[in-house]
Amino acid sequence: MPKYVYTWEEADYNNVKLFGGKASGLAMMAQLGLPVPPGIVITTEACKAYYQNDKKLPPGLMDEVREKLKYIEEKSGRRFGDPENPLLVSVRSGAAVSMPGMMDTVLNLGINDKTLPGVAKQLDSERAAWDVYRRFLQMFGKIVLGIDEKKFNDIFEEVKRKYGAKTDAELNVDALKEITQRFKELILKEKGDVWTEDPWKQLEMAIAAVFDSWESPRAVFYRKVNNITPDIADGTAVAIVMMVFGNAGPDSGTGVVFSRDPSTGEDKLYGEFLSLAQGEDVVAGIRTPISIDEMAKILPEAYKQLYEGAKKLEKFKKAVQDIEFTVEHGKLYFLQTRNGKLGPLAAVKVAVDMYKEGLISKEEALLRVKPEHIVQLLYPRIDPKENAKPIAKGLASSPGAVSGRVVFDADTAVAWAQKGEKVILVREETKPDDVHGMYASVGILTSRGGMTSHAAVVARAIGRPSVVGCEDIAVDYEKRQFVVKGTNIVVKEGDWITIDGSTGSVYLGKVRTIEAEPPQEFYEILKWADEERKLGVWANADQPDDAMIAKKFGAEGIGLLRTERMFRRPDRLEIFRKAILTDDEKERRDALNQLVPMMKKDFEEMLVIMEGKPVIIRLFDPPVHEFLQNEEEIIEKLAELRAKGGSDSEIKSLEDMLKRIRRFKEANPMMGRRGVRLGITYPEIYEAQVRAILSAAAELTLQGKKVNVEIMIPQVAIAKELEYIKQNVIEPVAKQVESEYNVKLNFKVGTMIETVRACLTADEIAKVADFFSFGTNDLTQATFSFSRDDVENEFMPKYLDLKILPYDPFETLDEGGVAKLMEIAVKSARSIKPDIELGICGEHGGDPKSIEIAHRIGLNYVSASPYRIPVARLAAAHAAIKAKGIKVYEY
Amino acid sequence: MPKYVYTWEEADYNNVKLFGGKASGLAMMAQLGLPVPPGIVITTEACKAYYQNDKKLPPGLMDEVREKLKYIEEKSGRRFGDPENPLLVSVRSGAAVSMPGMMDTVLNLGINDKTLPGVAKQLDSERAAWDVYRRFLQMFGKIVLGIDEKKFNDIFEEVKRKYGAKTDAELNVDALKEITQRFKELILKEKGDVWTEDPWKQLEMAIAAVFDSWESPRAVFYRKVNNITPDIADGTAVAIVMMVFGNAGPDSGTGVVFSRDPSTGEDKLYGEFLSLAQGEDVVAGIRTPISIDEMAKILPEAYKQLYEGAKKLEKFKKAVQDIEFTVEHGKLYFLQTRNGKLGPLAAVKVAVDMYKEGLISKEEALLRVKPEHIVQLLYPRIDPKENAKPIAKGLASSPGAVSGRVVFDADTAVAWAQKGEKVILVREETKPDDVHGMYASVGILTSRGGMTSHAAVVARAIGRPSVVGCEDIAVDYEKRQFVVKGTNIVVKEGDWITIDGSTGSVYLGKVRTIEAEPPQEFYEILKWADEERKLGVWANADQPDDAMIAKKFGAEGIGLLRTERMFRRPDRLEIFRKAILTDDEKERRDALNQLVPMMKKDFEEMLVIMEGKPVIIRLFDPPVHEFLQNEEEIIEKLAELRAKGGSDSEIKSLEDMLKRIRRFKEANPMMGRRGVRLGITYPEIYEAQVRAILSAAAELTLQGKKVNVEIMIPQVAIAKELEYIKQNVIEPVAKQVESEYNVKLNFKVGTMIETVRACLTADEIAKVADFFSFGTNDLTQATFSFSRDDVENEFMPKYLDLKILPYDPFETLDEGGVAKLMEIAVKSARSIKPDIELGICGEHGGDPKSIEIAHRIGLNYVSASPYRIPVARLAAAHAAIKAKGIKVYEY
Repeated sequence: MPKYVYTWEEADYNNVKLFGGKASGLAMMAQLGLPVPPGIVITTEACKAYYQNDKKLPPGLMDEVREKLKYIEEKSGRRFGDPENPLLVSVRSGAAVSMPGMMDTVLNLGINDKTLPGVAKQLDSERAAWDVYRRFLQMFGKIVLGIDEKKFNDIFEEVKRKYGAKTDAELNVDALKEITQRFKELILKEKGDVWTEDPWKQLEMAIAAVFDSWESPRAVFYRKVNNITPDIADGTAVAIVMMVFGNAGPDSGTGVVFSRDPSTGEDKLYGEFLSLAQGEDVVAGIRTPISIDEMAKILPEAYKQLYEGAKKLEKFKKAVQDIEFTVEHGKLYFLQTRNGKLGPLAAVKVAVDMYKEGLISKEEALLRVKPEHIVQLLYPRIDPKENAKPIAKGLASSPGAVSGRVVFDADTAVAWAQKGEKVILVREETKPDDVHGMYASVGILTSRGGMTSHAAVVARAIGRPSVVGCEDIAVDYEKRQFVVKGTNIVVKEGDWITIDGSTGSVYLGKVRTIEAEPPQEFYEILKWADEERKLGVWANADQPDDAMIAKKFGAEGIGLLRTERMFRRPDRLEIFRKAILTDDEKERRDALNQLVPMMKKDFEEMLVIMEGKPVIIRLFDPPVHEFLQNEEEIIEKLAELRAKGGSDSEIKSLEDMLKRIRRFKEANPMMGRRGVRLGITYPEIYEAQVRAILSAAAELTLQGKKVNVEIMIPQVAIAKELEYIKQNVIEPVAKQVESEYNVKLNFKVGTMIETVRACLTADEIAKVADFFSFGTNDLTQATFSFSRDDVENEFMPKYLDLKILPYDPFETLDEGGVAKLMEIAVKSARSIKPDIELGICGEHGGDPKSIEIAHRIGLNYVSASPYRIPVARLAAAHAAIKAKGIKVYEY
Repeated sequence: MPKYVYTWEEADYNNVKLFGGKASGLAMMAQLGLPVPPGIVITTEACKAYYQNDKKLPPGLMDEVREKLKYIEEKSGRRFGDPENPLLVSVRSGAAVSMPGMMDTVLNLGINDKTLPGVAKQLDSERAAWDVYRRFLQMFGKIVLGIDEKKFNDIFEEVKRKYGAKTDAELNVDALKEITQRFKELILKEKGDVWTEDPWKQLEMAIAAVFDSWESPRAVFYRKVNNITPDIADGTAVAIVMMVFGNAGPDSGTGVVFSRDPSTGEDKLYGEFLSLAQGEDVVAGIRTPISIDEMAKILPEAYKQLYEGAKKLEKFKKAVQDIEFTVEHGKLYFLQTRNGKLGPLAAVKVAVDMYKEGLISKEEALLRVKPEHIVQLLYPRIDPKENAKPIAKGLASSPGAVSGRVVFDADTAVAWAQKGEKVILVREETKPDDVHGMYASVGILTSRGGMTSHAAVVARAIGRPSVVGCEDIAVDYEKRQFVVKGTNIVVKEGDWITIDGSTGSVYLGKVRTIEAEPPQEFYEILKWADEERKLGVWANADQPDDAMIAKKFGAEGIGLLRTERMFRRPDRLEIFRKAILTDDEKERRDALNQLVPMMKKDFEEMLVIMEGKPVIIRLFDPPVHEFLQNEEEIIEKLAELRAKGGSDSEIKSLEDMLKRIRRFKEANPMMGRRGVRLGITYPEIYEAQVRAILSAAAELTLQGKKVNVEIMIPQVAIAKELEYIKQNVIEPVAKQVESEYNVKLNFKVGTMIETVRACLTADEIAKVADFFSFGTNDLTQATFSFSRDDVENEFMPKYLDLKILPYDPFETLDEGGVAKLMEIAVKSARSIKPDIELGICGEHGGDPKSIEIAHRIGLNYVSASPYRIPVARLAAAHAAIKAKGIKVYEY
């Protein structure tokens, strides 16, 4: 028979799989010399043997327990079953992984009619002893004997009523005695055949019950949901620990303490203490605990021990400790310790401090700061002191809290903003047409759409807090209001609301927010991150504002400058529509030529801001139909005109427009004539763009400014597509511009890798491309055959819910599919052109897990939206550190 | 110096790269002992040396030519430049690959003032000699001296007018003398500095001119267009061959003959002969040639020689020969031989005959029959005797010729067909709504769309001849007519037309067609194909008709039974719409349950026809929006009602319907909620289908019939999707059906592999799938990010035109991308489940080149539309034979 039972001193506390988390922690503290209640632990191997042995305790186990229990008796000076000075124990479950509340524990085992007086003496209170007794009977009855808990509660309430007690504390000794008596009668009636007064038998039964609870339905379910497979945790250990009583007298109590302040990171004990209380009482909230500083005054000796123990543990674990303790008659016992969860401020400060104290390495310090900490430090948040209650909840899609007056359309947003109002744009969902209104707003709220809906993507890109997919609200555009479903709350246009894009909450009225003030340690961490990371961090930025923010946050270039918006400005849109709808090539060229000087100015601005850092400009990508007049409106108008008898010429002209627009209508625009396919069929558009870009570069070069332009062709699936555009559009235009400005231009031409075929033929494409930038949004669509515009409302929520997908692949790169394709592409491209510049500019560029993949497959940089730059810098450093094999710190 | 000049006897006729095609053929015939005009050949190496030597003949070359020319003189008994019995030669170009008309040739070289009398004597005609002389001058002047041909023609026409000659034949000796004189004057005036009367000098100049023509712009362009790279053909050889004259007298002439009948394959000489003529005259069509049988009567000796030579050549080349010959004074000369192009009937018969004659192997016989032969033998064709002239041309998208009365919509097609009319459905393009009309029609004609447009795909699938993308016609639905553009031809509804889907031609009225009667050899070839092929050949068939045809043509199973049409029948569509549009799950289930017995009957029919052969049934795939009411019509109707003041309830109900329909509208339906994604979000649809399928299987099993059902889930991208449907839909329904019928069911569950991610994660999917069927249509879309519905009219024609793509990847599998993915998937799936059943059911399943890929990557079967089954059987055999390394026979 293997050894199943170990004392705290014997157990290897690093072997959590064998001893479970709880016992390991106690063993560790015991071996560090901290005061813990003496105890022993039965291994998880015994649990496995129990199940293999047809749910019977393995033979000899109880002999071993008996033998080892002597150790507790020695340490405590108490004896199990001894009427004079009885030892009471807890029988606790504890697996390798914490499964809070999922398994059973029996407390106070060892009390019975014979030992009760001894307990009363230990506790200095007969009442407390009876209280312990009745608690034991109820717990044992329920957990070990399987008697319905309600029956105990009914008796308890009945006696309480009989004695006129309003709270448990008002129950006197008689009442508790009567409860105890009736509990015993209940047990005899229900389970008289198995009940025993013998504490050794009780102990045996309790151990078996704890083992049983490993396979209880809720425990099994919990493990399934949390993916706790047998290789992670296989069976529960059982700890048998001497009971200590915080309710033994006024010099007793129980508390929780952090070794440093978990919200500020300040290096002092932080916590609460409740005297004359056991753990359960703290939870019940009968009295208000006192602060740990106050405890120091009452119990100075115990406090000193606590402080020293906490620091010792912190040093040993190299992490802030979250400690539970009890004081019994002035004597301190550590009951549990674990790494403390820290707020963002504390996480950053503690990481930096611990490095400076020599406790942890710089790499470790970096790993301690999580991307979400960085995010939270960047944005304003709701003042927790306000205690505000949200009226609705949606998806936390772009962080930050902000208050503003509700508007329901983009034009109103712009108009009100121009009058100096702070507005929040509320829509069912947003479309490209709404972007000017999103810019004018301080926040965005939508009732539909997911984390990668248009509203969410744009909000993150332009740094506006947003809550999307808030299905709690129903927007009524006609009445200019929204109602909160299931309530009578109506919010009208102009009303104030506050949204918190970090939590997804929506509040009525103005709720006070706290501005973001990243501490100095924040900048220190980012500087360290830059030293570690191998990946460059670039920004997706379309406008000067974005570029400026990106630069401020440390962007090393622009990885994606989308040019579509340049055509959307009202003054330009009409010209562009004319260019598209005409059949005459010359007319098209003339119209587009009108746009060249305007676009040239746009490009100059961006290039000047970036001061010679690389700027990747993507040529026109979307289907042109998006830029044309709305078809449904025309159909409606036509039907109306015909019904009302409009003039023939009016009808004719509308019909003509409808016909022309329909030529651009597509069954699946995402895979239609867009990107390079549009560039090849309507080369005039790319010509105009390239002319504007290169003229801007030439102009600035003449002015002696540094310029670093890279022209990117989207949607390439065939190497010859890129070759065609280079030879027939870019090179001829470049020659013209060079001779016009009399300057030699230096620029790169590359492609967005966003079709599957581009990945599979990356070697061929690499021959004609100076750089690749993975467009992972489209690549994800194509790999899954999921249309991002459609999946979010239709089936993605269901897929995540049913765990058909572990996460939304539009947020985090799909390892199984998309990342495989990218890896194929990287290898294949580098086989042809080892130093080709490879980056990623999809939404994934700002996602930590995706950044890790980017690092792993060897990209040169990631490009993220401006406000994600600090996160990307940190995540890139994490990726580099993890690649060295350094384990990640888990809070 | 390498040896540059070879006699016919010396040249290795297999070294086509060195001697060019023409000279190799002549050398071969000479060495076989056939009478050919004696000649020598200058190698392509000399041509390369010419270009390396700054376009000068390599030193010593002319000495070699002089030396070798003696061989011709010996053989012919004539002497180059000899006034008595002069040798005239042709100087001919000839590269490794035939480049018809792209390079130059000089004829009749060796005639001049001195040798003319000798030529006259040889030809027995002074006039003929002058004719030869003037021809030589014009050719030499144009090709060697570079004088504008128009100047020669002007002189020629002037003299013709002067002598009042209407045709060239009417020119007398004086006229020809005058022409010759004036040609010489022209040459002296234009190129007097380089002109020479010396035939040796002329020969030298002619050789250089032939070399020059290798790099002429049209030759360079031709090579580029036809991908003739230097490794295929590098430079031209020059053949110098004694001139022979078919116009030397009545015992002379020229002709073309096939060694067997090229249209029937009958084993007898077939060809034409024109006496007293040279090659040019045949082309000019001055007189009507006589048949080769008639020639046998006039020139029995020459005919006998011709017959024996032809048979000798045929035996040697193991192929029907297409031979040019000339008879000079009764003496036969073979001038050229090549493998003859055969019609479909002949190709099949000759292949079988030659195998039986022991000339070729069975494998070789199979390779001789091309897929297009098989196709042409299956379908009726226009009777060539009718000499009908098409009024318009479109794409030959589904083979066969048929006559019918024009109708312009599907409902009319059905109504007329029910009255017993044969109708041809004419549309701008077709949609799923039109399919019932397509079934009712004998042929389909559309003015828009490509080879993989809806009309083309459905027409092929259901075996209706079709011509699509016929842009010559303009359809006017309102006037119920179409007009042929640029003509005054108007075709009204009810008019007869005839279309030929094998050629793309459209004819006015009824044109006589010939029924397809495949000869017995056709079935013999297919039997042989079955012995050779490794790939199974299954059919895509949705209805009993299709299944019956498929079985007749030898299908070994149904690889794709699409179930969508079952919902489209008018009586069912309303029920289905109700199921979709309701919010109530019970209502949905009830509606769908109404459909179960109807669908069960459909499945039973199909299973009974297939008699235990596997039948793969694909569950519902398309986006449901396709089945709902037309949105634009409702918008129009609404606008109309509002304008005219319709009743509130009417408006309300339309608004409600619009709202419900719009819930199913998608930005990119191809990648939206369809296939398994629909199955997971609306499991009731799949439940109803599975119930109908399995009930049918159970019913037939009880009746003792053989049943082999495979249920296929479309659009799977994640293994868990398939797992979910299996566990939550298929297995529960199967249990219910088994207990209801009290029968044990055997069926497979698999998936269509049509998303990229499915290919990349095929190992995971293989764990839960019994079979895969590649859906290469969708896979091609996803790999390229091309929407098939959109590309055909928008940019595919341009891409093919610009050679950005070598072929349409929706017709032939894309080797570079899609096939790579499939290979990844096959390897990955087989690594998990070595005997998993793998097939292909996209349109590519019937395309020979794609079938070769299917063979190469190791699929088990291809599934093609019923009428493509014979082609697929042959192509599968070809793939297996080619894989053995046997070279393909090229006609």
